[in-house]
Amino acid sequence: MEKLTPHNIMVMLLSLGILLGVARTLGELAQRFHQPAVVGELLAGVLLGPTVLGTIYPELNLFLFPINGANAIALDAISNLSIVLFLMVAGIEVDLSTIWKQGKIGLKVGITSIMVPFVFAFITAWFFPTIFGKELQVNNFLFALFIATAISISALPIIAKTLMDMNLYRSDLGMVVVSAAIFNDIIGWIVFAVVLGLMENNPDGANGGNNIFLTVLLILSFAGIVLTFGRWLIHKLLPFVQAYTRWPGGELSFAIVLALLGAAFTEWIGIHAIFGAFLVGAAIGDSSHLREHTRVIIDNFVSFIFAPFFFASIGLKINFISYFDFSLVLTVLAVACIFKTVGGTLGAIWGKMSYRESSAVGFGMVSVGAMGIIVGLLALEAGIINNRLFVALVIMAIITSMMSGPAMRLILNPVKSWKLQDALFSKLFIRELKALSRREAINEMVEMVCREFSLDQDKVGYVVWKREKALSTGIGKGVALPHARIKGLAYPLVSVGISDTGIDFDAPDGKPANVIFLVLTPENAPESQLTIVSEIAKLFRNQTILQNVLKTRTFTDFLALIKSQSAPKVSDTTI
Amino acid sequence: MEKLTPHNIMVMLLSLGILLGVARTLGELAQRFHQPAVVGELLAGVLLGPTVLGTIYPELNLFLFPINGANAIALDAISNLSIVLFLMVAGIEVDLSTIWKQGKIGLKVGITSIMVPFVFAFITAWFFPTIFGKELQVNNFLFALFIATAISISALPIIAKTLMDMNLYRSDLGMVVVSAAIFNDIIGWIVFAVVLGLMENNPDGANGGNNIFLTVLLILSFAGIVLTFGRWLIHKLLPFVQAYTRWPGGELSFAIVLALLGAAFTEWIGIHAIFGAFLVGAAIGDSSHLREHTRVIIDNFVSFIFAPFFFASIGLKINFISYFDFSLVLTVLAVACIFKTVGGTLGAIWGKMSYRESSAVGFGMVSVGAMGIIVGLLALEAGIINNRLFVALVIMAIITSMMSGPAMRLILNPVKSWKLQDALFSKLFIRELKALSRREAINEMVEMVCREFSLDQDKVGYVVWKREKALSTGIGKGVALPHARIKGLAYPLVSVGISDTGIDFDAPDGKPANVIFLVLTPENAPESQLTIVSEIAKLFRNQTILQNVLKTRTFTDFLALIKSQSAPKVSDTTI
Repeated sequence: MEKLTPHNIMVMLLSLGILLGVARTLGELAQRFHQPAVVGELLAGVLLGPTVLGTIYPELNLFLFPINGANAIALDAISNLSIVLFLMVAGIEVDLSTIWKQGKIGLKVGITSIMVPFVFAFITAWFFPTIFGKELQVNNFLFALFIATAISISALPIIAKTLMDMNLYRSDLGMVVVSAAIFNDIIGWIVFAVVLGLMENNPDGANGGNNIFLTVLLILSFAGIVLTFGRWLIHKLLPFVQAYTRWPGGELSFAIVLALLGAAFTEWIGIHAIFGAFLVGAAIGDSSHLREHTRVIIDNFVSFIFAPFFFASIGLKINFISYFDFSLVLTVLAVACIFKTVGGTLGAIWGKMSYRESSAVGFGMVSVGAMGIIVGLLALEAGIINNRLFVALVIMAIITSMMSGPAMRLILNPVKSWKLQDALFSKLFIRELKALSRREAINEMVEMVCREFSLDQDKVGYVVWKREKALSTGIGKGVALPHARIKGLAYPLVSVGISDTGIDFDAPDGKPANVIFLVLTPENAPESQLTIVSEIAKLFRNQTILQNVLKTRTFTDFLALIKSQSAPKVSDTTI
Repeated sequence: MEKLTPHNIMVMLLSLGILLGVARTLGELAQRFHQPAVVGELLAGVLLGPTVLGTIYPELNLFLFPINGANAIALDAISNLSIVLFLMVAGIEVDLSTIWKQGKIGLKVGITSIMVPFVFAFITAWFFPTIFGKELQVNNFLFALFIATAISISALPIIAKTLMDMNLYRSDLGMVVVSAAIFNDIIGWIVFAVVLGLMENNPDGANGGNNIFLTVLLILSFAGIVLTFGRWLIHKLLPFVQAYTRWPGGELSFAIVLALLGAAFTEWIGIHAIFGAFLVGAAIGDSSHLREHTRVIIDNFVSFIFAPFFFASIGLKINFISYFDFSLVLTVLAVACIFKTVGGTLGAIWGKMSYRESSAVGFGMVSVGAMGIIVGLLALEAGIINNRLFVALVIMAIITSMMSGPAMRLILNPVKSWKLQDALFSKLFIRELKALSRREAINEMVEMVCREFSLDQDKVGYVVWKREKALSTGIGKGVALPHARIKGLAYPLVSVGISDTGIDFDAPDGKPANVIFLVLTPENAPESQLTIVSEIAKLFRNQTILQNVLKTRTFTDFLALIKSQSAPKVSDTTI
């Protein structure tokens, strides 16, 4: 049996470890600057691939990521498996019912946000193929179709994340954008599958129309069957799986086996495997029987392991600097931004939203994100676009994803939702309060906050103590929450003081406070106080957390405890 | 860049899907018959590999699992990745501190359970190599060393699972066995790594002693450093990872990246990658900072996806029937059973346990399980054993794992701990009770149970009603738990009756009961009533479960709901 040599295995594990390590590190950094993680993950591949490492230290680049031989095959196999699992998760996150719940506006935006960029990008690419850098031998029709698809697809996960960050996800406007993005996602992938089918069957116009017709028919029937009968069957089977197999292993394997088989099937009918994985994912995710725990396990493992690996591996394929073509990048970017924004905006106006909100919807739909990159990669592999256009598409996908949030923020000027974590600072942490009374504790903490952030200590101290005197803020269970709204503060500040002995804060349960949170919030953001105070109260409902807080020695320990207190959730994902 | 063709990708996804699907199905079946899942998973490979499918339909076997070319490489790559992740999880589950907590008896059993089989198997194989089917060209010393290692290693996860099934895990005897198994695991792997290092450097005695010495030194220093300094460093770094990266993605990637790099390193120094993954896993799992959620995500994904895939792929490598050698199987089995049992028993006697308990400890340590299979596979790949001996080792590993539980049960005759799930039967489920009063409800349910299980209806009805009259069993929140101990019952029976309208059971909260559990337990197993009743009460502490129960339509829906109510836990794993 042909297999990897010990050297191959060593190189494979080393390259996987390095690729994943760098991708996740840069992905975390990107998020720290409020950018999608996929930006950092792609950059990891650019750094480790031919663009940077291949230029400054080509031997190491080739040692880690050989172009030929067993290691190239191994990396490609794992990369293919990763993208299949990633698209399955993307499918699971698509909630078909949202489209119907949201009613007609979402559907209208969905239609225009895909039709407008599709039609106009098609026309542009059809009449001016050269400005997109079309190669001579490529079929004009297919090329224009592909450009139209790559530009009209939207990145649902990035859109969802952007809305969550702005606290708009559950708003009417947010749900319009999300349901439109779901519609766009499904239709976009089906259209792209058809385009891919055409490419496979008719790369140079040599094959007859029969094959094309058959492929399109197969794709549409597969999509139709999976999303109707398949969806129904999965919904019926899940309770059996849950009842008669180990929990949650049965459900986990059931989902992944189905996705692998669906992927194999679509690869077999001549379109890419990811299409099948996406559809199977959508059918599974739609079932109300799918348990949250199973979603969490699949979602976290795929988003934090397979997806970063896949996006980093894209950067390994190409030298992003030598294929960078400034005018091509500008063209692709301009076409995408203009047509996508206009498309989304028109749909919202059609749905009778105000002009301001409509333009926000338009910018909400502009993200091309990871999906555009995947579409571009497949077209590159199918030989329909060249390296220059691929690089331009990747950059366009990233920039549209980065601009969506700031543009919406500019238009809507939404109320920023502050969370506890945003307001905690290492320099506002006192591991051992000297204070013995609540007056002293408040003074000690106020003094530190005012010193570190140049606030007026007398004023701050006065309002905090006034509030405290009026009604004690000891909430029991060893926690006290002195707080005040401070004029002129730009963002909330939370100081944490710990007292092993405890300080009497006149709590209803009579217990002294061991952890004191001094919560200062801006006067013009009244809801931030409520959010943060109730977040703290919720945190301390757990009975073990107080003891664990008392065990911490540093701010990092404390932050680690607070952050990892919650159960992991789905959809705070990578893209 | 060399890569997979669309046909390769299709075959890869199809073969992964089929392999995983069959492996998980048979693994579930094995567990249903109280056997380790690994038995079913191995069988999947035997069915799909050369043994069965290759014999009856060789074309399909070769299509799915080609011996040469890109697909063979791809499968081997994923299989190698799987085993590395599996050994990482095995390492995480090793709790080093248990050894010290348990004190000297565990250590004594650990030492004898590895020394006795090692020494005696070594002597046997050294003096009678031919009865183990040694090939002429293999170095006698290495061969004997390997046989000794393969037989003295123990399968910690199977041992833990067996003890849990018997409700002995937390008993003194259980902790002795577990801590001995942990000790055995660590020492066994280090010894095996040394043997592997010797093999690599000295397959035919040509190399000098210097290399061997260097390899052994490298192995021991690596193990020492990872388990001391590495362990300390990981413990220090984890809070930073938790505090400054996304939760739980940061911790997840941190663990996997370290395992991949550790694996690459040990592969590089000439022993197998899994050794590094195991040690890194042990170092990570030992940190009290590692959060339960992260463990659950890694453990479930690896145990239910990667591990079944790996064990099934073993069956693809070899024809288990044509290499089956009855006398060899018997020899290996006899040597393993005798020396391992004796070793464990002696340690326990040395630790001053009673003879009966000591022999139970001996049988507890007999499982060779997945670890023995992995050791055998590596030796096969290193050319030190032939296919016949490999098949014999696999069979020995499985049989020792299957006999451990029954043998301990025979010796200790432990009290079986019944759980709610064991006592639920489809035929005892009434979706809509006709009854309107509690008297009628009890009669209706008692009648059905007695009819289905041929019990005396008058007697059962009398004791249940007597208990109910004495003190009503409506516990509130819509639940009632009429119950009684029944003479002559062999195992507990729980009948479930649902009433959408509700039946008055005189509950403290005044609410009528919508779900009635009739709990009948054997008179001679008094604790089973308490276990089951408190399990039900705990289940209904969750406020949403009653509504969900009322939504169920069939017994399967009901069972699915009950089973997947709990959060997934670690260590109910595959092996």
